[in-house]
Amino acid sequence: MALKTAEQYKDSLRKMNPTTYILGEKVTNVTDHPLIKPQVETVAQTYSLAHEPETMELLVARSRLTDGEINRFTQLFESIEDLRAKVKMIRLCAQRTGTCFMRCTGLDAMNAIAAVTYEIDEKYSTNYYERALEYIKYVQENDLAVYSGNSDVKGDRSLRPSEQPDPDMYLHIVDETKDGIIVRGAKAHQSGSLCAHEVLVLPDREMRESDKEYAVCFALPNDTKGIFNIYTRGPLEDRLLEGIDLGNIRFGKSCPLVIYDNVFVPWDRVFMCGEYEFAGPLLRIFAANHRHSHGGCKSGVGDVIIGAAATIAEYNGIPNASHIRSKITDMIKMSETMYGCCLAASMEAGRTSSGVYFVDPVLANTSKLYESVNLPEMVRLLIDIAGGLVATMPSEKDINSPEIGHFIKKYLKGVADVSTEDRMRMFRLIETLAFQSRDVASYIMGGGSPEAHKITLFRETDLEAKKKLAKRLAGIKE
Amino acid sequence: MALKTAEQYKDSLRKMNPTTYILGEKVTNVTDHPLIKPQVETVAQTYSLAHEPETMELLVARSRLTDGEINRFTQLFESIEDLRAKVKMIRLCAQRTGTCFMRCTGLDAMNAIAAVTYEIDEKYSTNYYERALEYIKYVQENDLAVYSGNSDVKGDRSLRPSEQPDPDMYLHIVDETKDGIIVRGAKAHQSGSLCAHEVLVLPDREMRESDKEYAVCFALPNDTKGIFNIYTRGPLEDRLLEGIDLGNIRFGKSCPLVIYDNVFVPWDRVFMCGEYEFAGPLLRIFAANHRHSHGGCKSGVGDVIIGAAATIAEYNGIPNASHIRSKITDMIKMSETMYGCCLAASMEAGRTSSGVYFVDPVLANTSKLYESVNLPEMVRLLIDIAGGLVATMPSEKDINSPEIGHFIKKYLKGVADVSTEDRMRMFRLIETLAFQSRDVASYIMGGGSPEAHKITLFRETDLEAKKKLAKRLAGIKE
Amino acid sequence: MALKTAEQYKDSLRKMNPTTYILGEKVTNVTDHPLIKPQVETVAQTYSLAHEPETMELLVARSRLTDGEINRFTQLFESIEDLRAKVKMIRLCAQRTGTCFMRCTGLDAMNAIAAVTYEIDEKYSTNYYERALEYIKYVQENDLAVYSGNSDVKGDRSLRPSEQPDPDMYLHIVDETKDGIIVRGAKAHQSGSLCAHEVLVLPDREMRESDKEYAVCFALPNDTKGIFNIYTRGPLEDRLLEGIDLGNIRFGKSCPLVIYDNVFVPWDRVFMCGEYEFAGPLLRIFAANHRHSHGGCKSGVGDVIIGAAATIAEYNGIPNASHIRSKITDMIKMSETMYGCCLAASMEAGRTSSGVYFVDPVLANTSKLYESVNLPEMVRLLIDIAGGLVATMPSEKDINSPEIGHFIKKYLKGVADVSTEDRMRMFRLIETLAFQSRDVASYIMGGGSPEAHKITLFRETDLEAKKKLAKRLAGIKE
Amino acid sequence: MALKTAEQYKDSLRKMNPTTYILGEKVTNVTDHPLIKPQVETVAQTYSLAHEPETMELLVARSRLTDGEINRFTQLFESIEDLRAKVKMIRLCAQRTGTCFMRCTGLDAMNAIAAVTYEIDEKYSTNYYERALEYIKYVQENDLAVYSGNSDVKGDRSLRPSEQPDPDMYLHIVDETKDGIIVRGAKAHQSGSLCAHEVLVLPDREMRESDKEYAVCFALPNDTKGIFNIYTRGPLEDRLLEGIDLGNIRFGKSCPLVIYDNVFVPWDRVFMCGEYEFAGPLLRIFAANHRHSHGGCKSGVGDVIIGAAATIAEYNGIPNASHIRSKITDMIKMSETMYGCCLAASMEAGRTSSGVYFVDPVLANTSKLYESVNLPEMVRLLIDIAGGLVATMPSEKDINSPEIGHFIKKYLKGVADVSTEDRMRMFRLIETLAFQSRDVASYIMGGGSPEAHKITLFRETDLEAKKKLAKRLAGIKE
Repeated sequence: MALKTAEQYKDSLRKMNPTTYILGEKVTNVTDHPLIKPQVETVAQTYSLAHEPETMELLVARSRLTDGEINRFTQLFESIEDLRAKVKMIRLCAQRTGTCFMRCTGLDAMNAIAAVTYEIDEKYSTNYYERALEYIKYVQENDLAVYSGNSDVKGDRSLRPSEQPDPDMYLHIVDETKDGIIVRGAKAHQSGSLCAHEVLVLPDREMRESDKEYAVCFALPNDTKGIFNIYTRGPLEDRLLEGIDLGNIRFGKSCPLVIYDNVFVPWDRVFMCGEYEFAGPLLRIFAANHRHSHGGCKSGVGDVIIGAAATIAEYNGIPNASHIRSKITDMIKMSETMYGCCLAASMEAGRTSSGVYFVDPVLANTSKLYESVNLPEMVRLLIDIAGGLVATMPSEKDINSPEIGHFIKKYLKGVADVSTEDRMRMFRLIETLAFQSRDVASYIMGGGSPEAHKITLFRETDLEAKKKLAKRLAGIKE
Repeated sequence: MALKTAEQYKDSLRKMNPTTYILGEKVTNVTDHPLIKPQVETVAQTYSLAHEPETMELLVARSRLTDGEINRFTQLFESIEDLRAKVKMIRLCAQRTGTCFMRCTGLDAMNAIAAVTYEIDEKYSTNYYERALEYIKYVQENDLAVYSGNSDVKGDRSLRPSEQPDPDMYLHIVDETKDGIIVRGAKAHQSGSLCAHEVLVLPDREMRESDKEYAVCFALPNDTKGIFNIYTRGPLEDRLLEGIDLGNIRFGKSCPLVIYDNVFVPWDRVFMCGEYEFAGPLLRIFAANHRHSHGGCKSGVGDVIIGAAATIAEYNGIPNASHIRSKITDMIKMSETMYGCCLAASMEAGRTSSGVYFVDPVLANTSKLYESVNLPEMVRLLIDIAGGLVATMPSEKDINSPEIGHFIKKYLKGVADVSTEDRMRMFRLIETLAFQSRDVASYIMGGGSPEAHKITLFRETDLEAKKKLAKRLAGIKE
Repeated sequence: MALKTAEQYKDSLRKMNPTTYILGEKVTNVTDHPLIKPQVETVAQTYSLAHEPETMELLVARSRLTDGEINRFTQLFESIEDLRAKVKMIRLCAQRTGTCFMRCTGLDAMNAIAAVTYEIDEKYSTNYYERALEYIKYVQENDLAVYSGNSDVKGDRSLRPSEQPDPDMYLHIVDETKDGIIVRGAKAHQSGSLCAHEVLVLPDREMRESDKEYAVCFALPNDTKGIFNIYTRGPLEDRLLEGIDLGNIRFGKSCPLVIYDNVFVPWDRVFMCGEYEFAGPLLRIFAANHRHSHGGCKSGVGDVIIGAAATIAEYNGIPNASHIRSKITDMIKMSETMYGCCLAASMEAGRTSSGVYFVDPVLANTSKLYESVNLPEMVRLLIDIAGGLVATMPSEKDINSPEIGHFIKKYLKGVADVSTEDRMRMFRLIETLAFQSRDVASYIMGGGSPEAHKITLFRETDLEAKKKLAKRLAGIKE
Repeated sequence: MALKTAEQYKDSLRKMNPTTYILGEKVTNVTDHPLIKPQVETVAQTYSLAHEPETMELLVARSRLTDGEINRFTQLFESIEDLRAKVKMIRLCAQRTGTCFMRCTGLDAMNAIAAVTYEIDEKYSTNYYERALEYIKYVQENDLAVYSGNSDVKGDRSLRPSEQPDPDMYLHIVDETKDGIIVRGAKAHQSGSLCAHEVLVLPDREMRESDKEYAVCFALPNDTKGIFNIYTRGPLEDRLLEGIDLGNIRFGKSCPLVIYDNVFVPWDRVFMCGEYEFAGPLLRIFAANHRHSHGGCKSGVGDVIIGAAATIAEYNGIPNASHIRSKITDMIKMSETMYGCCLAASMEAGRTSSGVYFVDPVLANTSKLYESVNLPEMVRLLIDIAGGLVATMPSEKDINSPEIGHFIKKYLKGVADVSTEDRMRMFRLIETLAFQSRDVASYIMGGGSPEAHKITLFRETDLEAKKKLAKRLAGIKE
């Protein structure tokens, strides 16, 4: 059972039926809803690739918890090699799906709680670490898709959690019983919430004593009572099930708003409960882990973007124009830079006291900062290479029209040996790569804002040591 | 009659009913079709602003042809001051609509034909110039919306028009009679074709003798027999008539594919017919004129982008964060750079032998090249400032739902004194600014590709003079 | 006398003999000192170009003060056309010298005091404006070179003038008598102090009441008692009078430190004396004027950089490589952008109440901000195009050596028809363009720091108006 | 003897006395010449750090050839760990010297010949590999400083070696005897030629059959008859032995022109002799190795640049200004990106058939491409943060002058607790970092031109695989 197939994954998901609203309507069979199906297909790739001969090596790992084979998306990082394999696995999944496969936030969060619960226990003699390992083992054994619940809605961003006029703008503990805790709040941008079995909720920032009730971490099945998934609306959504116009014909992503309306969490799923001084460390480890994932993911998406650019240049008849080659080379540089920094973040990883490995945060944040500027730049170059048809393409209905289909076939043809339909397909894929807001916004804002990455980079750097270097060379004595 | 009102414009448009297909269906009342209405509203602004007291000074000009007041969108440029006023008028229209108002291509094309027909006549003793002035006078007197038909579909881009396997990949003359000519071909990215009375068709590149039949320029009413408008599909189109989710609630743009299926053009509307050596000059003047328009337009769109960024920062509670101010200042710089270069291109304009003024092509192309990199960068900064909700916002149907509307209102609230609805509206406007492909692709590719601008810039620059400067300073004698 | 020749300028300078120290030694004949001579030659160009037939139109203006012809470097701006001509004159001078000609700070400062003294008089019924005009008339009649004394040494930059431990870190009034005032302080980066007849001292920042004694503006002959010019040391200074190795064989620049050691200023040369609320406006006008000068200057330097790049590519044998052409085109874009924004700042200039015209500060600051990033980028591209020999060229002594000269001549030859000496000259010019710190630092920091330009840009922009535009489009009612 | 001390290194160098010309004069005691001494000190660091307790771990390696400890600058890479240690060692050396330590080209070249001679032998049954190992063993045992001779002077760059009018523009074999070969030519930019014991000469490009005589690789002692070192002149050279004004008070670099005037090479030092098809592979491996070195080096130089920026901001009084912190963070990002990509290039290294490890060329070239744009950008930010005094600082002679020294001390003081002398020192270090042409040109052009890196990146990338990814997602069947 440790390695589900794609079908087993989908079946298990169908059984859950979390409370879900899409465009104002309550939906019952979420898994097969036309707006959700492409996302489920995307996550399903993380299952099916674990069974394909040429990719299973990257997708399958061993667990010391279960002492058996597991999907690497559920693994605790126990070596530099694990972290390196993670980057490569994620790049592979992105190459195969061209979008977000929504299973790495859970992976990154599980590793973060393993590292930090150990430290909390050391200080407070709590037993969070044991609970966390127990939970992770459960996830591994059942090969569950977990997503992490991070981004609180935040209200007025100039105010701390406890200062907000409405105390629910950050998720918090509203009550505590002998069986567990009751929480309330909302999490935004919840990529994967409708394709996952479980959510693992983390605090979204460092906390002070006054924010104590907000320092909470826990896991729940996604169909727990009181959890509401509200679908969020992006561009391109009128395309579903429409063939060519889909662009990326099988895969997609969504990022619901998830409401926690007085939700009960049993104690064995609570991994932090008021230990506010650990909220910051937990977030920092999760964030660095996740920026590390981004670099793998976006170099894979980058491969697709580069491939689309090279293909459309060929379809347009100018694959060898010097400016096209120059731009494609720039794109390769951008893609490989993210990959390189994340591999290096693996190489320079350290071992936490729990035994879990933690990537070099400077290199992981460097990769993400680079992504936030350079993936949008890759998209710009992609549009530049493709040309205006990326925005001005008739629909599949037009090319299939008995009245005007012949016009489309004739006039939108590029080079002789490529059909107009295939050229349209490629333009539609490019449109999706460039204008699917969930992906593009994630390039810029995913894993935290660029400003957050900059602050982390500044904090994690030993500036005094560098000042010493300069002073020594200048002959300044201290 | 010389200055139509917005209503008169719309009424006149309704009477035309050009042959139009939208998503595979033939449409009869185009002007009021839900996908077309916002565009008609946008063009209508160019009419209504000519009647508003505070804006009429920019929108109304005098004509030496009619000896009366005309809409500046139909004017021949007769001074530096005219070109300066054009930039300011266009910036104003963009500030008011936040998108393309689709009437400047016609303006730029009319000025180009006035300049070049004069030169053709000088060489060949033809009477194109007289025809052109007659046509422009007709446009001015009836205050018509004209769009220019430029971008041929091009087929295999490595081949010249006459080398294409299918001779129709560039529009060309297929027959000539005593009454006129018959043309065939297709034009892509035809911004404004469904909101205009007239089309003014230009060749899309320089031509050689072998391409003679492709060197053709003419004007036609948009409902001429044989002209087919085929709507092209972009993102965000399922939003129409849906309130908040619209983003830009009134205005929009589209860029149909237009087919010329053996269309007859009477001689008095033909302005070039085989004089291939003038195709290049005509295109170059049109292109420089249009890049000049772009700078005015995009500095106006830039104002909207900056305004949206500043507003959402305020709604999020952090208008004074130093990184936000720094980014907004960078955006101001970018917007003003385009405006500055286009004002300067006006200031340095020259007079052609026809009397029509022609902007400095180096400065106009510089502005467009800058736009192609920096408007996408402004969009990136806008998303960065706004945050992830630009991609993960529930719909208007959700906030109006009796079951979950209260969740949306509560949890998507930002600062205390702004309603959640208004915050949603601003996020939706930002979504449109960032992900409406027709606009974004136009920032990058509009008015020709960046590579085309670079080639123009290189050609128009006197490199030998600059080499002399360097040699003189280095003491090198020639 | 109103238009001095270059020789008359140099003779008049020789008579002044300001107190000067160079590398620790007191120098008597400053004008002919080998380290100063190239700078005097540079300023002399502003005189000689006023007599050359093809350039005199730009260099010669009319004055309403003298009612005669004057050098445009002494003119009060009385129209948009004056400001346009200023930009063009400055570009010309930079094209001819390839460096800073050190006479525009005085021009910019004279125009600033004309504008602001008028306003001070209006408020306080002082007679500064009359004094200022009298002074400017004297400068015009005698065609004097004036430089402006702006940059105070500033000490601890986190402290205001009156908060500094040493009160002299900003120049200030230390005494006042019936005949005039006594000032003390020091000004850094005083470009042109050793080639000018006069200094016009301005405050370096806005001032508050507590900084009253620092709000002072005055003019003095450069050889006034108590003024010390201390030469500052840059790279490449061992090259003087050494032929090829000079790079720019005739022209140069320097930026002394100037000390005001209890210097007496007679009342008729005092233009502000404690009216602290006008220090900010005076600085702002001067700064915008000077950033406007920068755009003209640096587009001229840009022409030299582009010319050097194109020449060396030719000498190396690869003028037509596609990447070389692409880079040169990028450089053209950068150069023209600065020029364009400054022409536009002229076009959008306003008339102050004194009648002096004042450039659009947004466009002028935009140009300078662009320069601070893009001139260094042009330098980078220049080095990239030239290749490593820009840093690894043997000396003129080597090529002239009887023992090894033949090796140099043989092995450093590029294309067949260019002598090795000429190739060396061009590499040396490029070295100077890239590594003469006074110029390069001025690209980045001249006319104030980039941060200062950003603050100005933010302040001068009406952000509220832009927010209104966005809200209107989004349908938000206020 | 395997680990020389710095003194032993210098003594051994003094004994060599290679033929050297400096500014036209023949020089006898090269090692102690004031212009050479700082460079010798720099290379000496690579010896002394091997003896310092805290750094020896990085500097000392084991050799399978000598079966003992060697300096890592002479090591054959036999594992990923070796390549990782190399990057770290190089970063350390750059942190300590702030410039180029001129010993990595030899290291990179020795590894390249080990890999490629093995392949030549396989094809031709030659014994180059054995010779190469013998030579490397000799270098290891004697802890020699080797530099690589790569960059031919190239003449007309549009012509291949055999097409040049002068056949000597690329170094080539002019004769062959039973004892060895005679070579002629010249190599430019020979960093370290005056601080090294040995030169290892490589071809500078791929070769065709017609270029056969140019396909030559060999090693020689630097004082071999017929080798002429000609010092090349850079900026800042009048500073030597002048205290504060030196900037980097101990260390420096130079890049002579080296002439091979009919030089004899014995057979046992010849590693390629006409096997033209291996010239390309040899260069490619060397180049990738050296770009890998660059990333380590420039991240170390980056640390010094960042340290200097942070120190001067403190000395100026504004270490905590938000724009300063933002810029320093950007600099950290840039520095770490190069480091990250080179660590990753280590991690992804492959084993050549000789057993020597070869870094991932895509990642190594990515780092170098990034450097060529971003180190100049770091320099720009450094100047921006430091302010204009970087270019306008009086000399040490001025501050020591009895007449004006007190002015300098008083007026160039920054914050209260830092002496003016120390502030001057830091500004002088910054001047050196920004304007020492040999270093800055190397950021841009070192290890080949950016265009060369782009071509490599394009060639080494499997674009077809990426096109397949895009087609699969778009639903295009092949």
